[in-house]
Amino acid sequence: MCQLLGMNCNVPTDICFSFAGFQQRGGRTDHHADGWGIAFFENRGCRVFLDHQPAATSAVARLVREYPIRSKNVIAHIRKATHGAVALENTHPFNRELWGRYWIFAHNGTLTDYDPDLDGTYQPVGATDSESAFCHLLQTLRERFGLVAPPDDQFVLAIQHWADQTAAHGTLNFLLSDGELLLARCSDKLCYVERRAPFPVAHLVDEDVSVDFAEVTTPNDRVAVIATVPLTDNETCTSLTPGELAVFRHGARLCDELTAKSV
Amino acid sequence: MCQLLGMNCNVPTDICFSFAGFQQRGGRTDHHADGWGIAFFENRGCRVFLDHQPAATSAVARLVREYPIRSKNVIAHIRKATHGAVALENTHPFNRELWGRYWIFAHNGTLTDYDPDLDGTYQPVGATDSESAFCHLLQTLRERFGLVAPPDDQFVLAIQHWADQTAAHGTLNFLLSDGELLLARCSDKLCYVERRAPFPVAHLVDEDVSVDFAEVTTPNDRVAVIATVPLTDNETCTSLTPGELAVFRHGARLCDELTAKSV
Repeated sequence: MCQLLGMNCNVPTDICFSFAGFQQRGGRTDHHADGWGIAFFENRGCRVFLDHQPAATSAVARLVREYPIRSKNVIAHIRKATHGAVALENTHPFNRELWGRYWIFAHNGTLTDYDPDLDGTYQPVGATDSESAFCHLLQTLRERFGLVAPPDDQFVLAIQHWADQTAAHGTLNFLLSDGELLLARCSDKLCYVERRAPFPVAHLVDEDVSVDFAEVTTPNDRVAVIATVPLTDNETCTSLTPGELAVFRHGARLCDELTAKSV
Repeated sequence: MCQLLGMNCNVPTDICFSFAGFQQRGGRTDHHADGWGIAFFENRGCRVFLDHQPAATSAVARLVREYPIRSKNVIAHIRKATHGAVALENTHPFNRELWGRYWIFAHNGTLTDYDPDLDGTYQPVGATDSESAFCHLLQTLRERFGLVAPPDDQFVLAIQHWADQTAAHGTLNFLLSDGELLLARCSDKLCYVERRAPFPVAHLVDEDVSVDFAEVTTPNDRVAVIATVPLTDNETCTSLTPGELAVFRHGARLCDELTAKSV
């Protein structure tokens, strides 16, 4: 099993604090040492840092931790290999283009007897069940909606339907983003915290580090952080339930608009 | 106009020496300060580092220079913006998947009155002529060969044909790789050096740095370095001629096998 970390904000925000704790789980405070990756959207553009070294000791992870890249949507993943060797091409998150947007996907879980009917529109480069699932998801969206992005509610409904079907093969916790929305789907383990004014002093579980968010934010900032296991030990974290799909935009969960129609 | 750097090798090799000189052209020894990017293939996987900061002062560029990532195929680009704002989504090299492989493309030149007939298979995310051309190239390959990669000679011929047609719109120097082959297409400025035993002591044009490759290689190593302008001042660089497409594999130009049929 792997670990996921996502962030969705209304203003570009750096993830250095959360990543500092998350990084330690890649080989130090936890055993997810088979590579890691992180994707930062900056408007339509996207930077993806991948490494098949353990996150806890990776030079690239040190850069990410120390160099504040400000982003409204971030997805990170640390890997404990189940399907597919420890190799760069099997490292999450995966990146493909659909509708003139980059899509970033990271998965936690294992799918068994899973061999989706891929027509070649998107083909996996590596050997993971996760990348196959991502290719199948994008193929399904393209079949369903053609070459133009649909309204968000239809899109979310299609994701929910695909996830329900795919989860018949096993555990399917995933994060997905196109730089606008961040979708978090839970099979068994995924939780989130929404930060807004008045901002707390947050303290990491994995390192003895605290940050006073009030000092580095404005009163209008909103940030949602989604993780497999809570990263802080003094904030209220909301657990998603099995089968639940949460949609975040501008740093807040869209409880009433989109997901009420689909969950 | 931008600058290109490519490397193709028979064993995984770091590009730190060449990149040290190339990086200086991104704002110090030359004026290409509108972002930069570099892609490293590692087997089928690929890492792409992008930054819209000038390469000469970028923290990510410093990491790339100091952290030896060993790769058999590398493509780098420093940008002087012509079409499209200075933004991450307009930063080369671009990355898409075709035939279950990642394809990396970087372009130097400007295409005018260029509006290729894109059917949506690949859609640009940014606003550059270069990314449109790359999307059109991949669409053309998929139309021509379907969902399975063709033999190399047919593939190279198709690239040559596409490049000849596209170059009617302007300057089309580009580098393209799938991690196996590296293709270099010249409109007006592109040259290469092939290094093999006995290895030279090479000296950079842009920095007073030398390296004795004999100390860091084995007698069987072969490395081809392709650049817009020579990076070293004491090696013999072969200039490509306008319209020429050079194909490199295992650190050597394939003069007789592939390109003889197409040039």
